[in-house]
Amino acid sequence: MNTHRLLIDCTDNVGLVNKITGVLANHGVNILENDEFVEKDQNHFFMRTEFTGLFDSGKLYSDLSTLLPKNSIINLTGKRKKNIIVMVTKEHHCLGDVLIRHAFGDLDANILAIISNHQNLRELSERMNIPFHYISHENLSREEHEEMVIKQVNQYSPEYIVLAKYMRILTPAFTSLYPNRIINIHHSFLPAFIGANPYKQAFKRGVKIIGATAHFVNHELDEGPIIAQDVVSVNHTNSAEEMARKGRDVEKIVLSRALALVFEDRVMVNGNKTIVFE
Amino acid sequence: MNTHRLLIDCTDNVGLVNKITGVLANHGVNILENDEFVEKDQNHFFMRTEFTGLFDSGKLYSDLSTLLPKNSIINLTGKRKKNIIVMVTKEHHCLGDVLIRHAFGDLDANILAIISNHQNLRELSERMNIPFHYISHENLSREEHEEMVIKQVNQYSPEYIVLAKYMRILTPAFTSLYPNRIINIHHSFLPAFIGANPYKQAFKRGVKIIGATAHFVNHELDEGPIIAQDVVSVNHTNSAEEMARKGRDVEKIVLSRALALVFEDRVMVNGNKTIVFE
Amino acid sequence: MNTHRLLIDCTDNVGLVNKITGVLANHGVNILENDEFVEKDQNHFFMRTEFTGLFDSGKLYSDLSTLLPKNSIINLTGKRKKNIIVMVTKEHHCLGDVLIRHAFGDLDANILAIISNHQNLRELSERMNIPFHYISHENLSREEHEEMVIKQVNQYSPEYIVLAKYMRILTPAFTSLYPNRIINIHHSFLPAFIGANPYKQAFKRGVKIIGATAHFVNHELDEGPIIAQDVVSVNHTNSAEEMARKGRDVEKIVLSRALALVFEDRVMVNGNKTIVFE
Amino acid sequence: MNTHRLLIDCTDNVGLVNKITGVLANHGVNILENDEFVEKDQNHFFMRTEFTGLFDSGKLYSDLSTLLPKNSIINLTGKRKKNIIVMVTKEHHCLGDVLIRHAFGDLDANILAIISNHQNLRELSERMNIPFHYISHENLSREEHEEMVIKQVNQYSPEYIVLAKYMRILTPAFTSLYPNRIINIHHSFLPAFIGANPYKQAFKRGVKIIGATAHFVNHELDEGPIIAQDVVSVNHTNSAEEMARKGRDVEKIVLSRALALVFEDRVMVNGNKTIVFE
Repeated sequence: MNTHRLLIDCTDNVGLVNKITGVLANHGVNILENDEFVEKDQNHFFMRTEFTGLFDSGKLYSDLSTLLPKNSIINLTGKRKKNIIVMVTKEHHCLGDVLIRHAFGDLDANILAIISNHQNLRELSERMNIPFHYISHENLSREEHEEMVIKQVNQYSPEYIVLAKYMRILTPAFTSLYPNRIINIHHSFLPAFIGANPYKQAFKRGVKIIGATAHFVNHELDEGPIIAQDVVSVNHTNSAEEMARKGRDVEKIVLSRALALVFEDRVMVNGNKTIVFE
Repeated sequence: MNTHRLLIDCTDNVGLVNKITGVLANHGVNILENDEFVEKDQNHFFMRTEFTGLFDSGKLYSDLSTLLPKNSIINLTGKRKKNIIVMVTKEHHCLGDVLIRHAFGDLDANILAIISNHQNLRELSERMNIPFHYISHENLSREEHEEMVIKQVNQYSPEYIVLAKYMRILTPAFTSLYPNRIINIHHSFLPAFIGANPYKQAFKRGVKIIGATAHFVNHELDEGPIIAQDVVSVNHTNSAEEMARKGRDVEKIVLSRALALVFEDRVMVNGNKTIVFE
Repeated sequence: MNTHRLLIDCTDNVGLVNKITGVLANHGVNILENDEFVEKDQNHFFMRTEFTGLFDSGKLYSDLSTLLPKNSIINLTGKRKKNIIVMVTKEHHCLGDVLIRHAFGDLDANILAIISNHQNLRELSERMNIPFHYISHENLSREEHEEMVIKQVNQYSPEYIVLAKYMRILTPAFTSLYPNRIINIHHSFLPAFIGANPYKQAFKRGVKIIGATAHFVNHELDEGPIIAQDVVSVNHTNSAEEMARKGRDVEKIVLSRALALVFEDRVMVNGNKTIVFE
Repeated sequence: MNTHRLLIDCTDNVGLVNKITGVLANHGVNILENDEFVEKDQNHFFMRTEFTGLFDSGKLYSDLSTLLPKNSIINLTGKRKKNIIVMVTKEHHCLGDVLIRHAFGDLDANILAIISNHQNLRELSERMNIPFHYISHENLSREEHEEMVIKQVNQYSPEYIVLAKYMRILTPAFTSLYPNRIINIHHSFLPAFIGANPYKQAFKRGVKIIGATAHFVNHELDEGPIIAQDVVSVNHTNSAEEMARKGRDVEKIVLSRALALVFEDRVMVNGNKTIVFE
């Protein structure tokens, strides 16, 4: 029997959990896992339920719609692998980690293709049997290059785009096509060291801990909703290069943890923040 | 308006969350926080709900009893400070941390008294205005000493007993009086280094991380349900004494974190394990 | 036999370690611990040696001076408790931690006095037998108030000033009197969330980790050399207040760790960064 | 100019650092990094020096031999990739991580071959162009199977053998051939959960943190010198399988960190413990 996930995002109301679980009970499904969260300042209700059972999804959806406040977002989805595109530049560590997980069924996603503005990762991609599209940015404006990338991405109709160390900034023309569906790994503990060369910045500032941040990409650079973060200790003996080397292990683990959360439909977005039902 | 906490521990059943929240809705209370957990292997249901509102607690209790399976445990409690006894031997770091929190209202508990088999911590206790009872174990058998301790403890009718580095082993005569109500801090990452001198053991084994464990005390030494754990890195330059020094900071923070969880009624016990609703 | 510490900060040169240890060997001392670090970009050499033995310190100093490049900094000190002033505002957790350590000889420092612009922590300070000076900032300009504070501080001739949650900004008039001798605990993972209300900033940004930073104070707010940092996980359920509560445990541990390092003469300052010989 | 590493392990003596650095100075080499450690209880001296320069290695070796106590171990090696064999059973995560690093020159080692008692990882190994030897243990005694493995391993004359989740126990016949040259990753925080099924053990015990340990393999199961350890938080909602999934990320990072340390000649063994010069 398949597992289903119901995500609800609506104005809070007394008795909502009771009403929603009542509808589910009427449909005879068996709840495996249930989480809710109320953002009190905004009087906003978020819920994720995982359940099994045979039911009429159209009827369930309409029963919930009748019950819930106007403008509620109801998302009902089967547990299944998401279709994704991975975008990279030259660094291999995040892509390598994602590809190994993919090859052994650990990723909860189908990688449809890899897109890069460099050739460095073609060989690895092809060894792992994933189509690799090289779209050079040379002699192109940012807009021209991005247009070519968008065209290529769109041909695959991906559900998510994973920026696994894609080192170019996306314009709103791109990000607005995939709201809360582009996941980036930033090589710092945001909001520290926004922008370029965070390890160099960290080295210069003499910090004792460095980190990585996985987040959805929106219109502002490095300002999208944060999904996951982690850190690792450094000290005065570490050069910027050694910080980068230590940081790479954090980056790939944080990215993969964020992908697992997103692909299991555990992440809901509330403005510039996430609710993560772990 | 006061905050109330409802803890339920019963056999799992389809629709339990719906039924329970239905009862709460009928009583007109306002749910602030709600967590549930189903232990699937045992088909066992755990729930913690925090709510405000005016209601008839006798009626709520009987409505829930009618609804829930036989042998369900229903615990309804107001949010209030717990009455506790703290037991210590010679080390000051955990007691000091607890006393400072207590003095500034951070502990969610009233410390009724401190009991020790040594005089070392009398001065600190008295400076902080807490009664200090010295019950020496010299020239007494374990049973004789413990009997005196039990007598002293019982006079206070505490809800919880906190072993803040009390270095003597309690017998079942003691532990059976306060099931899941005695909280100990053990200076290792259990189940590693059970028993005496864990830092010495850690030093001899050459581990790279040491830790601390807060747990309920039951009949087996260091085998009770674990509430909280944390670790800190060590290396070859650290002597056993330096490991102990580093470890003390972890011990006190882990103990205080466990106390906060227990005193906020966030910890439920399931056999030899805990469910912690954070 | 007393333990001595030698700190050297000079231009790097081939064979420096050999030459310095040669001098020490001639003086017949017994090296317990030896650390050196070369900042390659700046061709700068840092060394910390801990040793025991009977020797003529004037002669040792002059032998080293003869040997080392001009403008070398040579610091020879016995292992002893440092004299310090602690400054606080209203929050008790860092002061409480420092006072408990102090009371039991764990701090490597004598607290000469506590200075505050509020009365909140007077009772605790007096219970622990430390003079408490209340210097209100009301009806005073920043400069006037600071002048009064400086006057009070100077009367004690402290070696270090510990800002244990002192929530006022020091002007260069103050910081220039005690270069690399004022230690602050900042309630964020610098350089993230510089300035006021970092937990509120962290909550608004939706970060998944918060932290604390102990640093020397120089002329720029929150920009001085970092001594120690640590973090703790948070999630979407944590309010800004809960983040602050979690953060307080990190703050006090990070501050005390930094104080231990500084008071054991393990921290050398290189521009805006520290070398920490752990 | 090549980088060289000198490792010295001998009885401690006054002035050793001075004497050794004196010899190096005489040979005109340039020290990049220097670490020493004295195990005081055993009066034992350990040193690691990294340097560049042109020198007569035979002469340097004999100068050091003359200088140092009898029975000193002097190890002088150029910085170069180590030749290794990787052994695996069925799990892919550690091998995958090692292979990706290898493919991009991040491993400081040449993987000569992969040996397994199962076929599961053949495809990955071959995709990454590494010879894969399948040596089934079916219908063989432990000794017979191991003999075949040893024979295969020996043909490659590896410097190190990496057990990247090789789930069979090696006998002394094997381990005595490669003392302190076999590196294992154990899926628990040793010495907790020695032996089989550590995640199941951790789940049953209800721990709040799980971990992984990289260690040299000696004659006693899971008792060899520990090189690196790390942990990750778990809670009551995690099944043994989820703990295993979370644990895999720690395992692969801890193994790779240990390999980096060993292959950079930063790990010295002292009985059952390691000195790690980071």
